[in-house]
Amino acid sequence: MIIVMKESATVAELGHVIKLLEERGFNPRPNHGAQRTVIGIMEATGNDLSGIADLPGVDQIAPFSSSFKMVSRDFKPEPTVVQVGDTAIGGQEFVVMAGPCGVESTEQLLSTARQVKACGGRVLRGGAFKPRTSPYSFQGLREEGLKILAAARQETGLPIITEIISPELVPLVARYTDIMQIGARNMQNYALLEAVGRERKPVLLKRGLMSTIEEMLLAAEYLMSGGNTQVMLCERGIRTFERATRNTLDLSAVSVIKRASHLPVIVDPSHAVGHVDYVADMCRASVAAGADGIIIEVHPDPAQALSDGQQSLTFDAFAELMESLRPLAAAMKRPMPEPARKG
Amino acid sequence: MIIVMKESATVAELGHVIKLLEERGFNPRPNHGAQRTVIGIMEATGNDLSGIADLPGVDQIAPFSSSFKMVSRDFKPEPTVVQVGDTAIGGQEFVVMAGPCGVESTEQLLSTARQVKACGGRVLRGGAFKPRTSPYSFQGLREEGLKILAAARQETGLPIITEIISPELVPLVARYTDIMQIGARNMQNYALLEAVGRERKPVLLKRGLMSTIEEMLLAAEYLMSGGNTQVMLCERGIRTFERATRNTLDLSAVSVIKRASHLPVIVDPSHAVGHVDYVADMCRASVAAGADGIIIEVHPDPAQALSDGQQSLTFDAFAELMESLRPLAAAMKRPMPEPARKG
Amino acid sequence: MIIVMKESATVAELGHVIKLLEERGFNPRPNHGAQRTVIGIMEATGNDLSGIADLPGVDQIAPFSSSFKMVSRDFKPEPTVVQVGDTAIGGQEFVVMAGPCGVESTEQLLSTARQVKACGGRVLRGGAFKPRTSPYSFQGLREEGLKILAAARQETGLPIITEIISPELVPLVARYTDIMQIGARNMQNYALLEAVGRERKPVLLKRGLMSTIEEMLLAAEYLMSGGNTQVMLCERGIRTFERATRNTLDLSAVSVIKRASHLPVIVDPSHAVGHVDYVADMCRASVAAGADGIIIEVHPDPAQALSDGQQSLTFDAFAELMESLRPLAAAMKRPMPEPARKG
Amino acid sequence: MIIVMKESATVAELGHVIKLLEERGFNPRPNHGAQRTVIGIMEATGNDLSGIADLPGVDQIAPFSSSFKMVSRDFKPEPTVVQVGDTAIGGQEFVVMAGPCGVESTEQLLSTARQVKACGGRVLRGGAFKPRTSPYSFQGLREEGLKILAAARQETGLPIITEIISPELVPLVARYTDIMQIGARNMQNYALLEAVGRERKPVLLKRGLMSTIEEMLLAAEYLMSGGNTQVMLCERGIRTFERATRNTLDLSAVSVIKRASHLPVIVDPSHAVGHVDYVADMCRASVAAGADGIIIEVHPDPAQALSDGQQSLTFDAFAELMESLRPLAAAMKRPMPEPARKG
Repeated sequence: MIIVMKESATVAELGHVIKLLEERGFNPRPNHGAQRTVIGIMEATGNDLSGIADLPGVDQIAPFSSSFKMVSRDFKPEPTVVQVGDTAIGGQEFVVMAGPCGVESTEQLLSTARQVKACGGRVLRGGAFKPRTSPYSFQGLREEGLKILAAARQETGLPIITEIISPELVPLVARYTDIMQIGARNMQNYALLEAVGRERKPVLLKRGLMSTIEEMLLAAEYLMSGGNTQVMLCERGIRTFERATRNTLDLSAVSVIKRASHLPVIVDPSHAVGHVDYVADMCRASVAAGADGIIIEVHPDPAQALSDGQQSLTFDAFAELMESLRPLAAAMKRPMPEPARKG
Repeated sequence: MIIVMKESATVAELGHVIKLLEERGFNPRPNHGAQRTVIGIMEATGNDLSGIADLPGVDQIAPFSSSFKMVSRDFKPEPTVVQVGDTAIGGQEFVVMAGPCGVESTEQLLSTARQVKACGGRVLRGGAFKPRTSPYSFQGLREEGLKILAAARQETGLPIITEIISPELVPLVARYTDIMQIGARNMQNYALLEAVGRERKPVLLKRGLMSTIEEMLLAAEYLMSGGNTQVMLCERGIRTFERATRNTLDLSAVSVIKRASHLPVIVDPSHAVGHVDYVADMCRASVAAGADGIIIEVHPDPAQALSDGQQSLTFDAFAELMESLRPLAAAMKRPMPEPARKG
Repeated sequence: MIIVMKESATVAELGHVIKLLEERGFNPRPNHGAQRTVIGIMEATGNDLSGIADLPGVDQIAPFSSSFKMVSRDFKPEPTVVQVGDTAIGGQEFVVMAGPCGVESTEQLLSTARQVKACGGRVLRGGAFKPRTSPYSFQGLREEGLKILAAARQETGLPIITEIISPELVPLVARYTDIMQIGARNMQNYALLEAVGRERKPVLLKRGLMSTIEEMLLAAEYLMSGGNTQVMLCERGIRTFERATRNTLDLSAVSVIKRASHLPVIVDPSHAVGHVDYVADMCRASVAAGADGIIIEVHPDPAQALSDGQQSLTFDAFAELMESLRPLAAAMKRPMPEPARKG
Repeated sequence: MIIVMKESATVAELGHVIKLLEERGFNPRPNHGAQRTVIGIMEATGNDLSGIADLPGVDQIAPFSSSFKMVSRDFKPEPTVVQVGDTAIGGQEFVVMAGPCGVESTEQLLSTARQVKACGGRVLRGGAFKPRTSPYSFQGLREEGLKILAAARQETGLPIITEIISPELVPLVARYTDIMQIGARNMQNYALLEAVGRERKPVLLKRGLMSTIEEMLLAAEYLMSGGNTQVMLCERGIRTFERATRNTLDLSAVSVIKRASHLPVIVDPSHAVGHVDYVADMCRASVAAGADGIIIEVHPDPAQALSDGQQSLTFDAFAELMESLRPLAAAMKRPMPEPARKG
């Protein structure tokens, strides 16, 4: 249930309502919007809300209109803006996160980070722990990879995003990274969602490759109900019968999520299409679809990449892409930072 | 096989090669490009091409790189531009086709046509024959609907597009329409493809909601091998497990097709997403994805529409959408015509 | 709406109800069951049924419980049995239809027909007109193929089933075949459904490879509302993300259809799995799932088949399969005929 | 790579080969078959196998024919039989596992266990830790549920199977259960696979509802390469566009897996079809498809179940199902134990 306070309600009245709810055994969660405050009651059953609607300052009580609650626009009509360093994600700027699929060496990552920075990218991506379908595939540089990421941040000032693949790694990875990424295969790994939900650090939750949008929003609800409100959602393609692309990028998910939820939406065209030929088109489409940003793979030498080389952009292709995004972002009134001088 | 002629080849040399191929039982199909001419040989087996590579004017012989041939970039590297009235589809302009799902009355269609025209739409859509999942649903006004479409063209000057649902209707519908539409359910209706392939009129082929991109290109090959070269392809969403939208719009198909084929690509976001809330976002994304145009549903009173009301834009929503497309089209260097003065 | 007559209703009372309905502009369709007669009213709107419930002999009036009507168990609780020669499909016997994908020659078909007959198969399959994804693939022997099928029937006594791929071929094919087959790509080819619906000959309707069960039942409704009541449904696999098999055989469709509809259900494991290794397992599973029969591909020399060789059984494999089906059919109380003596 | 030893090879020769491989840095894994021993080498790169083929006792060296290795028939041609109490799974008997979706109370579980036992079921299922899509749904009785399961085993003698939802729960759950279950959402939870792989207890790995068969086999490879060889695979339906059933049961997966792998295959029709009407048909089809067993949901009062009531069989329906399975299992030469006397 949602308890909507009047615009004219006082802080004392709000406090009184919350106290009474707690006395009745609820765990009330207030959200303070620009216009007014809403109190979310997540408990599904056994609610004694009698008399609450008549308390001073209370405007109305209504049920949630969907199965997800804290992630919904019902609970929080204003868009959530996640601040990472000096970059605001979900605000006006269209944000580009880029970097290699996996961290392979200091040189590989540093050179990529410099190019990302030079072209106007705002966040550096790179996998240190890689979830692999086969136990015999390259599993990442692990903590060594985290250190290389931190060094790249140190030099370029770019905040970093990297994936966490299991609950016990949360403390270690959270110590290094600016954004914790939950990968597609782990979208419904509830132990991991709970561990990440207990952190107070931005998190990017990727859509499972055969998960519905509603299931993604419920997975985000695990994070938010655990106390982590800095959640971003990522559309990265779903599994279909089509074989020309690795997965099918579901850009309408951006539109659906933006109406249902206040959380920022990032698109990952690299994993969706799986082939460099189609990545740039889908990056441009993401801007126009209303996404808050994209996360893409860039590699100094894609042919030699240890993973996902066929979907990674070269430095030149990345620079060209960034140039083509700017007028579109401007047309959408979502400005992008100018690239650094090349001289 | 493809026989590529030298840039310096003479018309006489070309004629000699074609004559020889015909004598050997082939049905050679030349394509005259800006740079050079290519002769397509579609017969799969029993080819005696010995000595052809050594004829004067012949540069090389190569196999097609894909299962589709005449629709491929191998056969025709330059993009196909389909001319409909004074509108060129597949050229520089981003083309908007709009109108109601089904023609319901003269008044309904005429008022819509005027709004489409006023806002800068270039083609009027409207179904006269409706393929319906249930035999008990409204099946369209049939020839009466075609007459109403023709009247709307008469008044507004907009060319019209309407669906043909069976081979024996081809002569009737072709007499009225400017663009023949083959619907998603009929994408692999080979009798219909053959009948439409014998016409010399532009055709829009919609992707089956269960069809791969390759199958769509092979269906277009039926049209082209039948002699109809004015073919446009339409992405209109595929069937997936996701339930938040009616189908999943596969915008990466635009990117895949544009690389594989020379044919124009139109996107139909209305049928893909199935809900008016998401249509405008996907129209904008279509521009940025590199589509040559869109086809969308507009209705004077969506709540009263006999079909697809929930995915039809109101006149105001359509006007607003068109305004939002212009800066994006400009950013993509795909200009749209200015709207007519409203006064 | 369904008008259910009392068990005790007289023929005169029934006639009176029907006459009254016709006077009011309905097209009433009675179904005479073992227990009682039901009158189906398919018109969706504008029904004036006032007073009908009170007529002598009328038990009750109720709406159809689903979007399909004549194919539903509401309309006809007893299973439909389709008689083809001396074989009853949908009755107690488990029926095996077998033969090559395409008719290639008299010898190929005759030798196969003899093997099918010898092993206890009851219907001979073989394609004369082949719907092919590419216009350059083998399209079948056409009328020549039909003649070969007829000759094989002449010799073996096996009734034949062959596909009709377009409306104008209906009279020709119906002249030769015992069962008209509508292929998966044509499940929603309404012009074809209407043409076949006007015939009075058994028809096997295959599920579109991305069609829902409800859509298949509605396609069958086109056939039945056209007047053809001898309809059989065929599950032949649907398109999914899985790549180990050509399609995914949806055996639960058998269970769903048998509860929703009175029509017989046949399973086509050959096209579903697409590889001979898995065909026999799925034939056996079809028996136990409650199907009324199977239709499978057998070829004297699969490696040389012009189409679908990789999914065709050899004569030996077919004989072995038939032996393995018998105890399962017996366990399901669906007997199969004993094979002819091999001496 | 696979090193195949000759049938006549001596133990000393085998030991010599293994020692040499270890000296070269490999981690050789011998599999001792009835006919001969195979040594698996999983390391993908940098293998120096020069000279190995010429050692005494070595027959040949060959690459694995697939991406999975220890789970493949290449590595182990004989079927794996998992022994649980006095029940052998993957042997001749067709094994039925049954019980409620979630453990709700001692009474609920005990009464169900008695019915499972009485009807010839061999393993008792019941969830103590429930992975739920929403954080606000019932999450299971947790350790209390494990204790109730253990009590039911104590009384009935039935071994138990229950799900483990996160790595840190492995020691706790393994202390109680006879078979550890990895649920569909966790099929690619690598941290969990690794933790369970370190145990020496039978494990049932469910197919992810978005996973290919190859991905399931690779997930099983994680378990086996971790040292746990008592692995069973479970087909439980995949996600498709069809809405008449909860998921689409892919019975052809049984056939595919049995050819590719030596591991036992269990089918879960309850979760696949999601509705009690279709469960029994799919149980019977599973027998005939060649599965080694089924796992199904039974509840004393499905209408009151806290989870999955609509897909749970009543006691009577379960008894009836078991009776119908027996003749089919006999026809497949997969006997089932006779039910206990009801007196």
